[in-house]
Amino acid sequence: MKLEKLVGDRFKERPSDCLVESHTFMVRGGYLKSVANGIFSSYMPLKRITRKIEQILREEMDAVDGQEVQFPVVMPASLWQESGRYESIGKEMARFNDRSGSPLVLGMTHEEAAVQLVRDYGQTYSKYPFMIYQIQTKFRDEARPRAGLIRVREFTMKDAYSFHTSQEDLEKYYEKCHKAYERIYARAGLPEVVSVASDSGMMGGSVSHEFMLLTPIGEDSIVLCEECDYRANMEAAECILQNQRDEISEALTMVHTPDIHTIEDVCAFLHCETKTSCKAVVYQRNSDDSYVVLFIRGDLEVNETKLTNYLGGDVHPAVITEDCGLQAGYIGPVGLENKNLTVLFDCSLEGLNNLSCGANKEEYHYTGLDMTRDVAHAEYHDFAKIQQGGICPHCGKPAITISRGIEVGNIFQLGTKYTKTMGMTYDDQNGETKYPIMGCYGIGVGRLAAAICEAHHDEHGPIWPLAVAPWQVHLCAVRADDADVKAYADKLYEELQNKGLEVIYDDRKVSAGVMFSDADLLGVPYRVIVSPRNCKQGQVEIVSRDKAFSETASMDTAAEEIAKILAAATEEARQILK
Amino acid sequence: MKLEKLVGDRFKERPSDCLVESHTFMVRGGYLKSVANGIFSSYMPLKRITRKIEQILREEMDAVDGQEVQFPVVMPASLWQESGRYESIGKEMARFNDRSGSPLVLGMTHEEAAVQLVRDYGQTYSKYPFMIYQIQTKFRDEARPRAGLIRVREFTMKDAYSFHTSQEDLEKYYEKCHKAYERIYARAGLPEVVSVASDSGMMGGSVSHEFMLLTPIGEDSIVLCEECDYRANMEAAECILQNQRDEISEALTMVHTPDIHTIEDVCAFLHCETKTSCKAVVYQRNSDDSYVVLFIRGDLEVNETKLTNYLGGDVHPAVITEDCGLQAGYIGPVGLENKNLTVLFDCSLEGLNNLSCGANKEEYHYTGLDMTRDVAHAEYHDFAKIQQGGICPHCGKPAITISRGIEVGNIFQLGTKYTKTMGMTYDDQNGETKYPIMGCYGIGVGRLAAAICEAHHDEHGPIWPLAVAPWQVHLCAVRADDADVKAYADKLYEELQNKGLEVIYDDRKVSAGVMFSDADLLGVPYRVIVSPRNCKQGQVEIVSRDKAFSETASMDTAAEEIAKILAAATEEARQILK
Repeated sequence: MKLEKLVGDRFKERPSDCLVESHTFMVRGGYLKSVANGIFSSYMPLKRITRKIEQILREEMDAVDGQEVQFPVVMPASLWQESGRYESIGKEMARFNDRSGSPLVLGMTHEEAAVQLVRDYGQTYSKYPFMIYQIQTKFRDEARPRAGLIRVREFTMKDAYSFHTSQEDLEKYYEKCHKAYERIYARAGLPEVVSVASDSGMMGGSVSHEFMLLTPIGEDSIVLCEECDYRANMEAAECILQNQRDEISEALTMVHTPDIHTIEDVCAFLHCETKTSCKAVVYQRNSDDSYVVLFIRGDLEVNETKLTNYLGGDVHPAVITEDCGLQAGYIGPVGLENKNLTVLFDCSLEGLNNLSCGANKEEYHYTGLDMTRDVAHAEYHDFAKIQQGGICPHCGKPAITISRGIEVGNIFQLGTKYTKTMGMTYDDQNGETKYPIMGCYGIGVGRLAAAICEAHHDEHGPIWPLAVAPWQVHLCAVRADDADVKAYADKLYEELQNKGLEVIYDDRKVSAGVMFSDADLLGVPYRVIVSPRNCKQGQVEIVSRDKAFSETASMDTAAEEIAKILAAATEEARQILK
Repeated sequence: MKLEKLVGDRFKERPSDCLVESHTFMVRGGYLKSVANGIFSSYMPLKRITRKIEQILREEMDAVDGQEVQFPVVMPASLWQESGRYESIGKEMARFNDRSGSPLVLGMTHEEAAVQLVRDYGQTYSKYPFMIYQIQTKFRDEARPRAGLIRVREFTMKDAYSFHTSQEDLEKYYEKCHKAYERIYARAGLPEVVSVASDSGMMGGSVSHEFMLLTPIGEDSIVLCEECDYRANMEAAECILQNQRDEISEALTMVHTPDIHTIEDVCAFLHCETKTSCKAVVYQRNSDDSYVVLFIRGDLEVNETKLTNYLGGDVHPAVITEDCGLQAGYIGPVGLENKNLTVLFDCSLEGLNNLSCGANKEEYHYTGLDMTRDVAHAEYHDFAKIQQGGICPHCGKPAITISRGIEVGNIFQLGTKYTKTMGMTYDDQNGETKYPIMGCYGIGVGRLAAAICEAHHDEHGPIWPLAVAPWQVHLCAVRADDADVKAYADKLYEELQNKGLEVIYDDRKVSAGVMFSDADLLGVPYRVIVSPRNCKQGQVEIVSRDKAFSETASMDTAAEEIAKILAAATEEARQILK
């Protein structure tokens, strides 16, 4: 490919809407163009990258006995009504009617389609286990697309679905897929991706993992233990606390606290720390707007995923009306029992005494709250977000750190949620009718490309790993107006292509500065420089994009030399995988 | 791949909704499953076929300097408003609103997206020509999906868009693409596909061609000349007639024709042939419901594409109301001049005399109509469908035949329709601002797969050409319960795979009958049979799916033998291409 004919513009200025490096470089380097909020077209360089990623995904899925299939982008609503998700999923799912008025949806995930495809096939135990996967376009109407390809509305995804006759078999296969994922990231140049235990969210099921690239620009919070290998995302991390009770319990005392509402103000007024207070956080259930009051230690935050999992339904922050029976700013656990509310207690409060809290009376708080004495009926559950320095649920040491990460893949043990709701059964060895157990395994292709760019770039542009780079060699004919340079570079271009190498060739009559800054933006791993000075010395320069490698080769043997360097680099990558 | 683990069912019975062979075999062979009307999921065999077709498309598009890009499936309505097609395209385009209420559409073609992607890039003449293409999902809400993959609502398409600075350059490139298309069909095993001149329909532009597989199950009518190489689709074929006027004109005479409405009844009543009558066909414009009366020779049919092209807008068959001024069943050209209608005359009537026609009076017709004498003001245009035995517009001989065909691709010279409406311009050598000229080039992947199946099957199943077959070799271990058979077949399977061949291996303990009928449905070009009898003789059988080839090989050298046969077949296909 001649760079001169490559469709797409490259330029220097960071566009004002580009807040992360991968987005910036992909716009500045002519990789993509915005079509609408969170919807992009790809130019050739990005298309070549994503195709290479897709090929890695395909090979690794085939290696774990996956069968490539294809589900439709557009599906009938009836399929999603079978599983119940037509109702339970909100505005993220695009819905429309066809010309005859039948409701259709755009696929944002394909569990339903997978079950529909194999429901007739998988009727006897001997067909199991099996796994099907596809690489296909999905649409998810995200409320806040951001950061270029990191969070979009339309994306290409590899999604895989496995079917099993026992939990043990699922777990064995799940482990195999976990390893396949590690290979995928390593092959794509991101061996640093880690897996973390995660919450399953709308997918159903129990055990699940997210694969995370740790980076400050990530939108997920990852909980890591510095002492052991515990890793979880914030939603899934258990918050363990060692509650310290004072020896002497003071008396429960009502205090006048005029115009004081927030927990911080109350504690400042009472000269105590927020961790010696009992905070009320109020929600309403989405289903019927009924109130849920959650008491938690004043210095902690609520993990809403834990709350909705406990309640079995979504909630939203409450709107506290005059007639709802709650005194906004003054809610406390004493005297709240008889109201028509769901009242919950976080483990952080269990056994504590000498706490401040609301008195359920306007302008009044209590001090001297003793949970054991004053709220004897309370049951305690884990609703709190784990904190930096917190106790590791695995090794028990106070060594928790919290990092940011980009989720670049996930795997779920789904159980029988979909097979049960959609009536997929098989006969086992004894003729008994059973529901198959499912796993599912997803990787977003564009986001992975962006994550690779986030992990591998310098201030001038991306540094694509060889396995996913749009081209392998970037051939620069510096001073292409020099006849010797042009003639030799043309010949080298021909020779490299004949050796099966992927070459982008820049023979434009532009300055070396323009040439190299364009090459930096395209991020091709090896750059070959032909220039009048090099020609005079009978040599070409070969440098790697990351500057780790730089050598000269004789003009006569340059093509072989370059092919050898690439073969060695490919072999090295293969060795690391083993 | 072991057949035993291949997801999908194969069975004998033709499903009642399968009316064409490709659909029947794809359902019976476990290639696809219906998800909704005109929407399918693909199992692994079909996915492998379509991926191979896609790779052929990619290679041939790359060979004509195409750059692979990707446009979104979901696009903002605003993009289609720019070109005017948001209004002009009807219910085929799926439309919905996103969560913020912004109107979106599903791409059914991507001219708008192509212009949007390159509008900023192509601002100077030096960037031209260039071609971008994608292979991507499209959705078209067809009123009548039919025949499996022949006419669907969701499909994968290769669509390419070229941009030029002169009509000559477009034409040169168009010719190059035409040749690339011929190579594509030849490589995919359909060298018999022909190109026909076509009407451009909603795409705009003037010159266009459709690539047709001639088959009785096709839904398009193709006009072919037996004497020269003229080929056109029905919509585009000019109807040439040599009108014969009688020597003596009879007088225009009103005749009482009670209860007679159709042209056939009138002619029977008057004892004349339909071709000596002047038939009125009445339409209403879609835009304002105004009436259009078209007079045409009684034995001919109206080509509505020609009519709408002439009128510059769509029409529908008229609803003739009492107060519209038309006498249904008795409409004629005499005395209709002063009514508020568009009155049109087909060339088939020019100069004719002694015709029967309606008298614009209930229960009355005329005989003795002389177009020259009685309808002196008439202007004549070509609105008729060409007929079997008609005159070839190219060589002038009465050698027209009409065949049915499946359209498996199309190419269009679009002109500046999209660049003008969407404001894409470039500066030419003289600094003048101009609109680039576009071409576009489409091939539906699934329909091509179905067309290959229509052209290549026997009564037992598809006979896939080697280049697109789901696998290259179908290895049958007949009597896999025989230890020798199983051991040898296992070894051969291993060897064939090590040679890089794509093998589907059937080692199920089923009868040879079941094994072979499954193999027939999968249509793999070469079948290798290991059986107790063969083993005793120290040999394996190698037969081609089309039965043209059958030989035995020694068990010791079978793997090499098979690899050689495949290499020879591949080479033969390559030679034919040259």
